[in-house]
Amino acid sequence: MSTTHIDGVTVATQANVYFDGKCVSHGITFPDGTKKSVGVVLPATLTFNTGAPEIMECVAGSCEYKLDGSDTWERSAAGHRFSVPGQSKFDIRVTEAYHYICHFG
Amino acid sequence: MSTTHIDGVTVATQANVYFDGKCVSHGITFPDGTKKSVGVVLPATLTFNTGAPEIMECVAGSCEYKLDGSDTWERSAAGHRFSVPGQSKFDIRVTEAYHYICHFG
Repeated sequence: MSTTHIDGVTVATQANVYFDGKCVSHGITFPDGTKKSVGVVLPATLTFNTGAPEIMECVAGSCEYKLDGSDTWERSAAGHRFSVPGQSKFDIRVTEAYHYICHFG
Repeated sequence: MSTTHIDGVTVATQANVYFDGKCVSHGITFPDGTKKSVGVVLPATLTFNTGAPEIMECVAGSCEYKLDGSDTWERSAAGHRFSVPGQSKFDIRVTEAYHYICHFG
């Protein structure tokens, strides 16, 4: 079951644009100060670096991802999430738009 | 003064992707049911059609726009807004990412 909506948050009106627009997200902040982002990766193969650990939750579409140090592409689709360590990176391969929530920490 | 954040809203986690990703937005809903969207138009020249009347508020970056029936390109930058009638259209020309809030009705 994917998370279609998130209630009671503050949304940053300016988008984060990465990789010439292949990834676009908006930051959201919860009343307790927790920050997440909602975004989309368009068809592309990209490498993301992490600062804090991240949990990528797919809400629509799908991707394949490969964590740093792994040789295996794994698939993630709506309702699925995967974890990425902090100070790491992952490759992502998208053929249909991958819509996600990024949970930090 | 631009609107940098919007508080106390419900955000749709799935983005709206238009024109192959040249425009990406996320829908937000206020507690009273009012719907708006926050989005970004990347460098491109596009034509948008309206259903309901729209007010486009620029929060960062800039664009030039031309309303249906006008011959004049007008500039809109952070803090500025322009109105588009319902059942109409407008052209938009973007050279740096244009970040906006779309107010309906």
